[in-house]
Parts: sequence; structure tokens; C-alpha cells
Amino acid sequence: AASPRTDIRDCSVNPPYLPPTATNTTARLAALRDAMRAHSTHAYIVPSTDAHMSEYIAERDSRLGWLTGFTGSAGTVVVTQDRAALWTDSRYWTQAERQLDCNWELQRTSQCGQGGGWILESVPAGGNVSLDPFLFSIDTWNSYSQALQGSGRALLPMETNLVDQVWGDQRPPPASSEIYGLPAEFTGSSWQEKVAGIRQQMAEHTRRPTAVLLSGLEETACDWGSGATGLFNLRGDDIPYNPVFYSYTLLTSTNISLFVDEARLTAEARQSLRADCPGPLCVELRNYSQARAHLQRYAQGNVTVWLGTEYTTYGLYGVVPQEKLLEDSYSPVMLAKAVKNNKEQELLRAAHVRDAVAVIQYLLWLEKMVPQGQVDEFLGARHIDALRRAQQHSHGPSFESISASGLNAALAHYSKRTLSVDEMYLSDTGGQYLDGTTDITRTMHWGTPTPLQKEAYTRVLMGNIDLSRLVFPPNTAGRNVESFARRALWDVGLNYGHGTGHGIGNFLSVHEWPVGFQSNNVPLTAGMFTSIEPGYYRDGEFGIRIEDIALVVEAQTKEPFLTFEVVSLVPYDRNLIDVSLLSQEQVQGAGSGPSRWPAPAPPPPPRWARWPSARSSPCCSLSCRPDPDSSPAEAASSHHRSLPCFAFFFFYFHPCN
Amino acid sequence: AASPRTDIRDCSVNPPYLPPTATNTTARLAALRDAMRAHSTHAYIVPSTDAHMSEYIAERDSRLGWLTGFTGSAGTVVVTQDRAALWTDSRYWTQAERQLDCNWELQRTSQCGQGGGWILESVPAGGNVSLDPFLFSIDTWNSYSQALQGSGRALLPMETNLVDQVWGDQRPPPASSEIYGLPAEFTGSSWQEKVAGIRQQMAEHTRRPTAVLLSGLEETACDWGSGATGLFNLRGDDIPYNPVFYSYTLLTSTNISLFVDEARLTAEARQSLRADCPGPLCVELRNYSQARAHLQRYAQGNVTVWLGTEYTTYGLYGVVPQEKLLEDSYSPVMLAKAVKNNKEQELLRAAHVRDAVAVIQYLLWLEKMVPQGQVDEFLGARHIDALRRAQQHSHGPSFESISASGLNAALAHYSKRTLSVDEMYLSDTGGQYLDGTTDITRTMHWGTPTPLQKEAYTRVLMGNIDLSRLVFPPNTAGRNVESFARRALWDVGLNYGHGTGHGIGNFLSVHEWPVGFQSNNVPLTAGMFTSIEPGYYRDGEFGIRIEDIALVVEAQTKEPFLTFEVVSLVPYDRNLIDVSLLSQEQVQGAGSGPSRWPAPAPPPPPRWARWPSARSSPCCSLSCRPDPDSSPAEAASSHHRSLPCFAFFFFYFHPCN
Repeated sequence: AASPRTDIRDCSVNPPYLPPTATNTTARLAALRDAMRAHSTHAYIVPSTDAHMSEYIAERDSRLGWLTGFTGSAGTVVVTQDRAALWTDSRYWTQAERQLDCNWELQRTSQCGQGGGWILESVPAGGNVSLDPFLFSIDTWNSYSQALQGSGRALLPMETNLVDQVWGDQRPPPASSEIYGLPAEFTGSSWQEKVAGIRQQMAEHTRRPTAVLLSGLEETACDWGSGATGLFNLRGDDIPYNPVFYSYTLLTSTNISLFVDEARLTAEARQSLRADCPGPLCVELRNYSQARAHLQRYAQGNVTVWLGTEYTTYGLYGVVPQEKLLEDSYSPVMLAKAVKNNKEQELLRAAHVRDAVAVIQYLLWLEKMVPQGQVDEFLGARHIDALRRAQQHSHGPSFESISASGLNAALAHYSKRTLSVDEMYLSDTGGQYLDGTTDITRTMHWGTPTPLQKEAYTRVLMGNIDLSRLVFPPNTAGRNVESFARRALWDVGLNYGHGTGHGIGNFLSVHEWPVGFQSNNVPLTAGMFTSIEPGYYRDGEFGIRIEDIALVVEAQTKEPFLTFEVVSLVPYDRNLIDVSLLSQEQVQGAGSGPSRWPAPAPPPPPRWARWPSARSSPCCSLSCRPDPDSSPAEAASSHHRSLPCFAFFFFYFHPCN
Repeated sequence: AASPRTDIRDCSVNPPYLPPTATNTTARLAALRDAMRAHSTHAYIVPSTDAHMSEYIAERDSRLGWLTGFTGSAGTVVVTQDRAALWTDSRYWTQAERQLDCNWELQRTSQCGQGGGWILESVPAGGNVSLDPFLFSIDTWNSYSQALQGSGRALLPMETNLVDQVWGDQRPPPASSEIYGLPAEFTGSSWQEKVAGIRQQMAEHTRRPTAVLLSGLEETACDWGSGATGLFNLRGDDIPYNPVFYSYTLLTSTNISLFVDEARLTAEARQSLRADCPGPLCVELRNYSQARAHLQRYAQGNVTVWLGTEYTTYGLYGVVPQEKLLEDSYSPVMLAKAVKNNKEQELLRAAHVRDAVAVIQYLLWLEKMVPQGQVDEFLGARHIDALRRAQQHSHGPSFESISASGLNAALAHYSKRTLSVDEMYLSDTGGQYLDGTTDITRTMHWGTPTPLQKEAYTRVLMGNIDLSRLVFPPNTAGRNVESFARRALWDVGLNYGHGTGHGIGNFLSVHEWPVGFQSNNVPLTAGMFTSIEPGYYRDGEFGIRIEDIALVVEAQTKEPFLTFEVVSLVPYDRNLIDVSLLSQEQVQGAGSGPSRWPAPAPPPPPRWARWPSARSSPCCSLSCRPDPDSSPAEAASSHHRSLPCFAFFFFYFHPCN
């Protein structure tokens, strides 16, 4: 249960003390409880995802947000007649305290919460526990089922969604915007090549599946998926910040069925899908709402359907007889998408070059403006978003920019606190570009940080360096190495409560599974991109996170081991680095890899620290090539990897005066 | 499939080339195939464990060993009419090549092999795959079941064990030796206290189980268990090196049934179990063979049976209806046993002091004898066993001593190679004492090691130090930190193919689960003991392993973090350490912990390196206190932690001359 000691809310007084950001949910909860009674349901479970296990969702699917007022992206809610609780992880604890009213217990979890024990406590034996089976993955269904097994409480799927029923006509309408094709210059391979690749994997599998079912649009913090958006090189705008659209795909050895609102496809997109009709590369367009019925019919034949248990909903899964299922954690599409080919790698690198220019422009602007007291968190976020939009191929931010000053950085989202030279500031932002998706976090201080802030920042940076520099064998799981990002903090009894990294897409999801460092991620393979983002948060004081994107590459060892090449190109704040804490390896670079940390700074030390991230790029040896005639942005975007250092120098170092 | 390039066997020539250590299995296999035909079985699976998921097993249970000739402790066999294969992990690859004949394919796995894919290849659709359900854990059964699901091959439990049938009267008889009670001075708590603790956990569990079923005698590399041996403070000699006896226990809230051969109990043991009869602390003694029938009867009532899926056999599990099961990975007994109380910790420490004296005596003896060419691997193993037996409270070795010179150290077991100053030598040995079980590996070289040997040894040592010194948060899983033991090797593209450590008992199993660094181990908690044993193996050349036992203790951080205290007290071979590879932290000690590595060696460097392992023991600051009047063994065993350094000095350093 929520600890009253640290909760911002005080529900023990009458009337309760609530922050102004809390939502009054009494009427909504009462209406839901009426609906539950009408359906003889004693507990109703509401997830934060949609029917495709998406992490970022459309407003229309924000059932949990509407019901609770909590807008964080990861959470689970259980409502009974006399209790209501929200489970969420440490990224969102403070936010939840600010947004929930006293109807809600806040259950602080270290991972995605389930609430099995709480349900047993709160629902009498003989009671019914219900949920919408189209909003829960098979694995999540199974975990509830296991928790209730033998307890005398029944877990019942209910096709009527009770929240939707209560929400009524206040609920936003479905998406209607255009679904468009991605130009060939921005795709790593054609959709026909991708389909052929999946069919080959089907043919080579010992179980000889006859079809693959694709459900996910993108990924969530605890689940993942993939779908038509990636497979067919199409994009839509159904979900803010994520160029995806609602669809299911059933890909058989001879047919392709795409379940989508056909009217939304551009003429070109439609043409691309239908060019080879009829034939095995002809995409049959079917109504989105027909996916389940079609799958049910298909499953009556002599077929085997391959699907991923973590991102397929229990609602779809249930229509295929058990003996016709080939269940895997990962579908071949997911695995194929996770490993970027050379063209995709180059596209992602190029996007990071332009993105670095925008972020560095932002850092420069902050350095000038913050001392004047003119910037608040909201204006800061708006400014970085605008700088990104000015970059070539930009499609806006890849998620809602996090711009958090002082104690707000322990809260995952920003308000309107004024940035100050007396506080730390955390900026976690990213961009969508036609050639790639970016995500980067920098933490800074323009005045005099406290010794604790400086030590914590340095230890977070040490973790980032230690993991980025790690050499490891092929097929190593991320979870087996993510502790290297924590050790420098652990040494002094510090830690952070979130994951250490996630995959990232090519103009797709900023959180792209199954790559990353969590327990359900696949082993690291050359060609995968992941974020590396240790942090440290001190409630009520400050927050630190240092996030870069890194490509898994072959290491320069005799055996074919792997390591990371960091593709983020934005420097760190020297003002927060206590060099005396760094090991010689961290300062100088050592072992088999190239040096990735500059030699001890020449006096006077520059404002921003950086170690050359690219083993292939000599540019970051901090040589000086100012060219005042071309704008840095132009130069960077045309020369890709060779010019960002120039840009840094132009803006920050001016070492050639 | 076995790679002909590296296999010692050459099955491509006629007659095949086989090492003299191979066993001719043609007749046994033919008889088994006859039996399979008679039972309409197309594939028969044989595990290396017994009905209690034991790792070390009695000769009578060595079905896999008898059938194949392979005597390694971890493996799985599948036999069809025309193929036969053994799966085993890298510890045993060379050994398997030396013991298998050409009837057998060797399947090299990185973990415990299953062979699901091989079965699909080798058994036609419509075929039957059989196994003895009393020799497989529920989880292993489920993994085969999943592999065959929907493939048209049936997985059938068969109560007749076909290997036993073929083995016939050549099979050794059941154990008949005495089962005896452990004196109170060597137990951490009485069996009545342990029973009360389990009953309390039953009462506090939300599912309110009415009984706990205990199946395991000890633990295996891929499974684990616990049982009556630990619970009742009894010991037996049914399995070599492991003071356990065959039994099952059904512990209910009001009754205790112990299934055992009653005639084997000593009068005292019987008295201890029956002292409180009748009553809830009365142990009812029942026939070992009645366990299944009794459980079946019990399960007809209104009951809930709590069991651990990883170590209960599918044969027993199947008699309890699904809705009356409370399945967990870990039973309360396992968890209680894993955390040693203060008395148990002191007992284990004391055993390690006497054990160190024996091992150091052995190292001294080797240093004197090896240059004379008088020691072979077998004699070496015999000598260390004898030195251990001379120690107080000794019950012999805790496993078959591994004594391996030169290329044999890449093979997990020894033969009769003569030890030489020109080769490395690996000694992995342990002792059973009434107060504890020990396990330690040292690798040494008495001449001039090659640069590669020295670097590899140093990197293995760095891994041992890095993991031993790690500070980590409570509830960290071993698998999330075991890579720290590998990183120094990874840096140069090296690795090892086995786990990094395992729990260890108090006069019980040398491999005691669920503690350790593998994926099915429980989170590390203060009071747990684990080995830390990185290694490096170069086939055909040499093998290195450095193994210590460490206790999980609270770290000296502000937050209650954890770290390790190494209780093994035997120095390392300085002859093999390249100090220039070590980081400053590794050499000097740094961070929050105390210094655990001696300052740069004074000239001339002593022969054996050691860093003070015990944060509580000032003895190992390498001060000099020779006392020629008492024997080191006596002194060490009476003064426990304060004197082992003296012992080292007396034997090795003589710095006071």
C-alpha cells in the first residue's frame, strides 16, 4: 500500500489534501462499479495498453488514464466495490501521487505490477475477477490465472469493455488520418523482401507453421510486438509520437491479409500493396474489426499459427485451438526487425547526426538563457521540439519531451518550474526522422553542484561508460550485463529503479522490443540498436539520467566477441564530472578497444565533456576545423559522421580564437 | 552433432579409433532397443539424475552411466532404433569423447541439454517418445511436452524403467547403511524448530497449503531440491560424498510422514523422531516405496499440497489433482536452508579453517614433490584426500577430487598424468566435516608459465576478485551479477562455459541450491554461502579455475546493500599473476570496502599471493607471528579465524628468518 510518509497526497485529513494536478474520479469510479455489479464482477482489471500491447496509445485507448487521472505510460488498475488500486513502477511514483485522488491506493512496484495478491485480499472466495481479453497478452492472462488458481476466485474474460461503456460518448473517436508509404530511400529493404524472409523462416521451422499472426503496432515497457507498420514500410499517425496505424496481419505461405481501415490508405500505399495481385505477394485488405473472425475461420483448417505469446492478446489467442498453435516468445518479424542491415544502420546514424545538432543548439541556448531566468520547463521542451523540427526529414518528437528541473527530475514529466543556475536540469527528448528515431537524455548544472550531485552524476556516467565499453560474447542476454551500468552507483549504496535500455526503431517506436537489457529481451546481436541509460533519482531533490543510443558491433578481439558503438553525439556536462572518481580505464580508455575518453583535460577545461564514441570516426579526436561559412546544421547533415565535432567546437569550444 | 574435427574419437575409419577409456555399449544398446520395440516406444529418454533429482547419485541409479560409459554428473540421453545421443555441457565434452564409443553422438550444449529438436528429427510423426516419469522434474517433463506439442509425436510416461529391466541383476542393490543423527553441536537449529518454521510459512501463505511435499535429497546442476536429510538433522551414506539418504517427506499442519527404510535408522535417530509421539511433532515412519500411494490418498481430501516444480518428479506430481496443487519454484524448506543462521555460519567458517590447513599442506607437499617427478594426478588426489581425513570432524571428501595436470585440466576429471614443473596443475577438491562442507579450486605452475597462461590465470583471478568485491542491492539475482566474474576474460575475447558458482551446505551437499549465479537461483540474501569460481579452459593445452567460498554479508554502505566475505583461506599462486594487468582497485582495494589485496609485493615476492578475505579479520595483514611449538593444524583449528595466516607464514613465507 501507499506509504503515507512519502505520499504527496494526505488522505488522512478531512477533506484530504490533494495537489492541484489530481483528478476527481469519484463519479467515474461509481459508474464503473455500477457496471461491475450489473455484470456480477467483483474485481475489474484495466491495463495501460491497447489491443496491440502498445506502450504509447491513442487518447481513445487511454482507459486507465481516463479512469484514474494518471497519465503515465505503464500501469495496471484493479477496482473492486470498495477498493481501487494502481500499480506502477518507480519512474511514475511521484507522478501518480500528483495525479491520483484519494479513491486510489498507489502500489509501488519495481516492475510492471500485477496485483495478484491484492486481488486475493480484496475479493472474497467465490468472487469473479474480470478483464477485457483483447487488452491483455497471453502471458499476462496466464500470470493472473496462476495467481488465482485454486483460490476459489474465477478469472473471466468479458467482451464488453466496462470502462468504454461508462466512458460513453465522451470517448474520442477512432483515428481517421492518412496511412502512407515510406519512400524507398528511407527503407532498409522492400516489404516484399521482408515477407519472403518470414516465409523462409516458416519453411525452415521444424513445426512448419502455415501462418504468422502479427498483432503489435509497437512495443510496451513490459510487452512488445511488431506489425504491419514495419513489415509493409507504411506509416500512420494513429498514436502520438509513433508513426504507426492500427492493424493486424495474417501472413500465410500463400496469402497476406492486412486488417486495416482501407479508406485511410493513400493511393500510393494501396498501389504498393496491390501491385502483385493476384499472387502470393498480393496483400488482401480486410476490415480491421474482422481480424478475430477471420483468424477463427482460418484456424478451422489443417493449419499451424505461429505467434508471440508476449504481445498477442488472450482474446485473439483463444480462437486458435491449442494443437494448432506454435507459441514463441518472439516472432520472426520481431527478430528480423531487431537486427538492422547496413542501410538501416547508416540511416539511423545519419538521423543521430542531425539530432545531435538540434540538441547541442538547445544546450547552447539554455546556457545563454537560463542565467537570465527566462526559461521554464515547458518553454524548454517547446524549444528543443522546435529545434528538432527545423532539422531535415523531421517528423517531430518521438515522445513527449521530458524537461525537468530540480526536484521535478525525480518525477518523469515536466510542469512549469523555472530553470535556474542553482538546480540540476534533466532533458530526455527524441526525434522522429524519416531515416530514424532518436532518444537522448542529458543532465546539466549551470552553477555550483553539490558534492553529492557531482558524485552521483559522475557515477551514473561511469555506469554509462562501463556498459558502453563492455566487450562480451555473442548471444549474451542484456540482463546479464546491465549491472555494469549500475556498479559505480552500487559501490556507494545507490541505485535506480528503472531498466537500463531499450531497442529503438527506424522511424518507428522509440521503445522497440525485443532488444534491451530486461529479462524478456533477446540476446544481443551485431546490428541491434539499444539505449544505455543509467540514472539516479533523489526524491524531492534532483534526478540524473545519461542516455545514449548504441549499436552492437563486433569487437576487435580474436574470437568474434561484441561491443557497443555509441551513435549519440552530444557531449556531457564537465561541470558535473568528478574526474578523481573515474578509473584509469574510464579516463584513458584501455583494454582491447580504442580510447573513448579524452586524455586529461588541458587547462582551462572546456564546458562539455565528450569521449569519441565512434571507433570508425577519427573526427572526435577533438581536432579543430572551424568553417564559419556553412551553418553547422547544413554541414552536419550533408557530411554525416565527419562533422559533428566541428559543430560542437563551433558552438562550445571556440578553441581556435 | 559431434564435430569430427575436434572429437577424440574417429568414427569415420573402420574399425573406429576409440581411446582405451571408451566403453563398448553395443550389447546394452541392442537390449534396450529390444525392450523399446516390445513397448512400442520409438525414442527413450534417460536422465543422469535419480528419483530425487540428485546430482551425485548412487551406482544403482547411474542408468545413464551404465548405458553409455559416460560418468559425468550432468547429461541426458535419447535412444531411438537407429540413433543414440548424449547431451552434456562443456565441462564434460572431452570426458564424453573419451568414454563414449561410436554408437553415440555427442551433442555439445551450453546448458543442460534437452534434445527436443533432435527427437523431432529422429522420430517419425506418429511415433511414441517415452520416459520414466519418476526420473524427470515437472519442468523437464513440460519442456519435452512443449517441444513435441502439435508435432504428431506423443510423450508417454512409462512406469517400467527400460534401462533397469535391461540392466537386470547386474544392477547394484539398494543402500542398506546406517542413517544417523547429527550431534546437536553441529546443527544450527533442532528439527522441531525447522518444522515449526515451515508450518508458520504454510499458515502465512495466502493459499493456506495443508501440506508440503519434500522430494529432493540434494541438488543437481540443472535442478535442485531438499529433503528429510536437512530437515531432520539426519545423515546417511546412500550417495558417495554426500551424507544423505533416500526418503520423501509429507509435512502437514498436524502430521509428519517420513518415507524411509526404517530398519536403517540408528536407535538414537529413531528416538529423536519419535520422542513427541503422538502429536504434531511425531514423525510417522513409512515405507519408502509407499510415498506415491500415500500422497495419492492424501490428495483425495480437502487439501492443498505445496511443492517445488523444479525438483519434484512428474511421477509424484501427477497424482495430485491440479486444483489441489500449490506450485512454486522454491519450497519454504529450500529457502530456509539457504540462509544460514549465525551458528551455521560459524560452523561453516570453522570447517574452512581446518580445510585450508589441509589444502596448504597439500600445496607445500606438491612444491616439494613435483620437481622430483614423483606425483601423478591419482596420487595427488589421494594425498589431498588423506590430508583432509586427518583434520578434526572429517567425513572424507565432499566429491571426487579433481586433480588434473596440463591438458587434462580441460577435462573435468583426472587420470594418471605425471605432474610436472612444465605444466599447469588444477586441483578442485572439497571436504565433508561434521560442521560444514568445503569446496576449493587452485591452479598452479611450478616452473615458467607461458605468457598466455599467465594472462589467462590473471584474468580469471581478476574475475574472482571483481565478483567477490562487488557491492550490490538486496534482492539482486546472481545471474545479474555473474558477468563481473567474466569481464576481465571477455575484454580479450575469452570466456568459460560453466556457471560461476553454487550454494554449499552444512555437512550436506557441496552443490546446494537454490543459491548461486544461474537463472533459476534465488536472489542473494545475507547469510547465504556460494562458491565463486571463474575459469578458463584451452582444449588440449591447459585449464584454469580459481574457486573460493563466500558468505553474503551486509556492505558498509549507508543503504543496506550486500557484498561477499570470502571464507576460503588458501593463497593463490603468485607465479601465475601478471600484476600489470590488475587495476588499481584490484591491487590496492578501493571504494567503500576494506582493502582486500596486499600492497605491491616487497622484493623478493613470496611464492603464494593472498589478499585478506575477511573484513573482520586483521590477521591477514601479513604480520608475522611464528610459533614453532604448536602444529599449524592444531593452532588453526583451535583459534579458528585468527591463525590461518600464521599457518600460511609458517609453511610458505618464512619472512622472519
